[in-house]
Amino acid sequence: MQGPVTVTAYDWVPELAQGFVRDLRLRWALEEAGFAYEARLIPHSKRESAENLARQPFGQVPVLGVADRSMFESGACVWRIAEASDDLLPSAPAERDACFSWVFAALDTLSPAIDRLAFLRHFADDREAAERIEAQAAGLLRAKLAHLAAALGERPVLVGDRFTVADLLMAFVLRNVEANGDLAPFPALGAYVRRHTSRPAFARALEAQMAPFRENAARYAAAD
Amino acid sequence: MQGPVTVTAYDWVPELAQGFVRDLRLRWALEEAGFAYEARLIPHSKRESAENLARQPFGQVPVLGVADRSMFESGACVWRIAEASDDLLPSAPAERDACFSWVFAALDTLSPAIDRLAFLRHFADDREAAERIEAQAAGLLRAKLAHLAAALGERPVLVGDRFTVADLLMAFVLRNVEANGDLAPFPALGAYVRRHTSRPAFARALEAQMAPFRENAARYAAAD
Repeated sequence: MQGPVTVTAYDWVPELAQGFVRDLRLRWALEEAGFAYEARLIPHSKRESAENLARQPFGQVPVLGVADRSMFESGACVWRIAEASDDLLPSAPAERDACFSWVFAALDTLSPAIDRLAFLRHFADDREAAERIEAQAAGLLRAKLAHLAAALGERPVLVGDRFTVADLLMAFVLRNVEANGDLAPFPALGAYVRRHTSRPAFARALEAQMAPFRENAARYAAAD
Repeated sequence: MQGPVTVTAYDWVPELAQGFVRDLRLRWALEEAGFAYEARLIPHSKRESAENLARQPFGQVPVLGVADRSMFESGACVWRIAEASDDLLPSAPAERDACFSWVFAALDTLSPAIDRLAFLRHFADDREAAERIEAQAAGLLRAKLAHLAAALGERPVLVGDRFTVADLLMAFVLRNVEANGDLAPFPALGAYVRRHTSRPAFARALEAQMAPFRENAARYAAAD
């Protein structure tokens, strides 16, 4: 990438969100591509500041800065990082197209079904009502996962014969599905997620997100 | 685009889905760009055929064919159409980046919140439980819409000074929010959706999706 790279991230989040904030997608892609970057940490309480809203209209992280330009939405940022590297995209146009399709499959087909189930399990205030709907939402997700499992088969990656940006985003969105045990009916998908999230670049990215959370935990606990 | 363009679509769907099947996103983009295309109609009952699954791993439509290449996921396809045209993307790199970010904002930030509410309102089997959760889901969507409304302000388009692919996808995902009355607190967003969906290219695209539904309605009713 041309020029210094920055990624906005939070200086601390509650434990349930640690390891899942979306700057991790960018950090992982940057680590895979070997691009140095600087994290710009902001307090979660300042996410709606005028400064952050000017870069990120929904008051979220991450924002990717490259020299004097910036982008928001982790999917868009990760794709731009992939385009700037030989490590995350194949060179053949048809395989690049396939990667692009799978990026949207991860974010626009799998992720909404995953988020819906997570909402019912963890965030819906009316617990009793949410539990009554949970099985239907789990079934809808399972149907999508069955298609994904069939498309992947026994292959280790979605496109071509090596890890790409498509695997990065797909493994990312499937991470908590795997952690929750919901991939149990699809052993190949479980193996897929574990294979890719055990890459050294992922470990480095995760540690980079987690380190400030540890450093700032006491301060946030004291302010509570 | 280089070579003949095809779009897969259904030959008929139930009334609730008519005008909302995602091939409409591609048809609209192709109409805006002035690219001729041929629809490849398949019965909804054949969406899981080996032939369709080979092109679209989740057994859905649309698939975009260009010469001998094909892509799936409407977001990916619409972006590719936009890249091939001067009509849907600005030429300045920073504005193209902004369009890319907004495409993901429409599909990965707004759309999941819209789908979650639609699931609770229309598709959850346990109606009583779903109604108890609906207000919370509506509130979460409203928070996203408030951010979008603030970012848009009184401007007619999201990026630069003319209609782009960002407006096409954002207006598309907001269409049923508008139809349901959920944009009432945000008059500028309601006007935004009505402005862009009253474009002649949208009307042509919608008619092209609807025409086969009308033609095949009697046949499907007879088979019922």
